[in-house]
Amino acid sequence: MKELLYEGKAKKVFCTEEPEELLLEYKDDATAFNGKKKEAFRGKGELNNKISSKIFTLLEEKGTPTHFLKELSDTEQLVTRTSIIPLEVVVRNKAAGSLVRRIGIEDGMSLHPPLIELFYKNDDLDDPLINDRHALLLADVTHKELMAIKEEALKVNDVLLEIFEDCDLSLVDFKLEFGRTEGGNLLLSDEVSPDTCRLRDKQTGAKMDKDVFREGTGELVPVYENILQRLEGATCAK
Amino acid sequence: MKELLYEGKAKKVFCTEEPEELLLEYKDDATAFNGKKKEAFRGKGELNNKISSKIFTLLEEKGTPTHFLKELSDTEQLVTRTSIIPLEVVVRNKAAGSLVRRIGIEDGMSLHPPLIELFYKNDDLDDPLINDRHALLLADVTHKELMAIKEEALKVNDVLLEIFEDCDLSLVDFKLEFGRTEGGNLLLSDEVSPDTCRLRDKQTGAKMDKDVFREGTGELVPVYENILQRLEGATCAK
Ligand SMILES: Nc1ncnc2c1ncn2[C@@H]1O[C@H](COP(=O)(O)OP(=O)(O)O)[C@@H](O)[C@H]1O
Ligand SMILES: Nc1ncnc2c1ncn2[C@@H]1O[C@H](COP(=O)(O)OP(=O)(O)O)[C@@H](O)[C@H]1O
Ligand SMILES: [Mg+2]
Ligand SMILES: [Mg+2]
Repeated sequence: MKELLYEGKAKKVFCTEEPEELLLEYKDDATAFNGKKKEAFRGKGELNNKISSKIFTLLEEKGTPTHFLKELSDTEQLVTRTSIIPLEVVVRNKAAGSLVRRIGIEDGMSLHPPLIELFYKNDDLDDPLINDRHALLLADVTHKELMAIKEEALKVNDVLLEIFEDCDLSLVDFKLEFGRTEGGNLLLSDEVSPDTCRLRDKQTGAKMDKDVFREGTGELVPVYENILQRLEGATCAK
Repeated sequence: MKELLYEGKAKKVFCTEEPEELLLEYKDDATAFNGKKKEAFRGKGELNNKISSKIFTLLEEKGTPTHFLKELSDTEQLVTRTSIIPLEVVVRNKAAGSLVRRIGIEDGMSLHPPLIELFYKNDDLDDPLINDRHALLLADVTHKELMAIKEEALKVNDVLLEIFEDCDLSLVDFKLEFGRTEGGNLLLSDEVSPDTCRLRDKQTGAKMDKDVFREGTGELVPVYENILQRLEGATCAK
C-alpha cells in the first residue's frame, strides 16, 4: 500500500521506498477559482501526466533541473521529493485573466520582457499576489534564491515558447512551482500542463487550456488530447 | 474665483495665477475603504492642513524635496504643481491593516528593513497592490525613478520616525505620493497626516489616526487635535 502524503486539487502525492522520491498520481479533477468550481473529467489525469512528463523531459534536455524522474503508469510519475517553496511563479507573455482584471490593462497586450508575478501559495488567503519583499518574509527563501528562481522561470519560458511554437500554439502565460532538495538545490517541481498554462491555437486563436473549463466554453478532454497529440507530433517530427 | 482643477476625497485642488503652483484646500470629509465609508468632521480639514504643513516643513529641513510652499489659510496651502505618479507608496515599520489580512502575518510584527509596498492609485480598481514591473507598465515611471522613489520613501520614514518619536508616537505605516515637476524632478506631493499614517501612542498603544474612524472606535477630531498639539509641542521644545 502506497502511503498518501498529501492530496491536492489535481494530484495525490505518495511516499515511495526511496525517502528522496515521491510518486505523483494525477487525478481527473479540474478546479478553478481556487477550488470554488470543481468537476471530474475522465481521462484528464492521464493526459496531464503524459503532457507534464513530456514537457519536463524536454526542459531537462534544455538544461533546466526538474523533479521529474520517470513515468510509472498512465496516471503516475516518479519525482524527486522537494520541499515546495510556497510561491506560484507566474510568467506572462501576454496579458490575460487575473492580470487584466486586477490592473486593468488590455487583454492580449504583449509583455516584453515577459512579466513575472509571484503569488503566495496559500489556499486560505486565496493565493494573493505578493512582491519580492513579501516573498522573502513568507516563503523562507533568500534574496539570491528568489533571483535564481526568476531567472530560471524566464529560461523555462524561452524553452516552452519554442516547444509550443512547434505545436502551433501560442503560450500566453503559465505558473511554475519550485522546490528545494534535501541537498538545498532548487528544482522545478509540480507540473506544466494545460491546467497551468494558457495556450492559444496560433491559427484560430482558440483557447486550448483550462480556460475552456474556467469559462465553460468547451470540452476539456478533447482539448487536452489535442495538446498531447501536438506535443507528440512535434517531437516525432524532429 | 479660484478655478477648481480636481476634487478628491480629502482635498480640493485649485489653479492659481502661477501655472506651476496649486492651491490645496483640505476638506472636512473622512473616507475609508476606498470611499465606501464616508463622514464629515468639522475641523478635520484645518487640522490636516496644519499637520501636513508642519510635517512637510520638517521634511524639507531634513533634505526631502516636497511640493509644499506655504500655508495660505486655516484650510488652504500653496504647493508646487506636479504630475502625480499614480502610485501609493506605502512604508511599513510594523504589520497592520490590509497587509495582515492579505498575507496573513501577525498584526504588529516588526518589519526590518521597513517593507515598501506599491499600490496602483486607481479608484475603479480599488487601488490594487502591484509589483515593480507592474509599476513600470502602469505608472509611466522609469526603473531609475522607481528606485529613487523607494529610496526617498525610506529616507522620509527615517525622518518621520524621529518626528513622531519626539511626540511619543510610534509610526506603524504611512502612504506617500510622488509627483514630477514641469522640469522632470521628483517631488514628494500630496499629504502626510493622520489620514495617511498609522500612529500609536507609545505609552498606551492607543490608535491615533484614521483607524479610529475606519474601525469606529473613537472620536476623530480630538485625536487629530492631539497629534497637532504634540507636533507643535515637540518642535517648540527644540
Ligand atoms: N517534487 C515534489 N515534491 C513534493 N511536493 C510536490 C512536488 N511536486 C509537486 N508537489 C506538491 O504536490 C501537491 C499536490 O499537487 P496539486 O494537486 O497540484 O496541489 P494544489 O491543490 O496545491 O495545487 C502540491 O502541494 C504541490 O506543490
Ligand atoms: N502637488 C500636487 N500637484 C498636483 N496634484 C496633487 C498634488 N498633491 C496632491 N495632488 C493630488 O490632489 C488630489 C486630491 O487629493 P485627495 O483628496 O487626497 O485625492 P484622492 O481622493 O485621490 O485621495 C489627489 O489626486 C492628489 O494626488
Ligand atoms: Mg496544483
Ligand atoms: Mg488622498
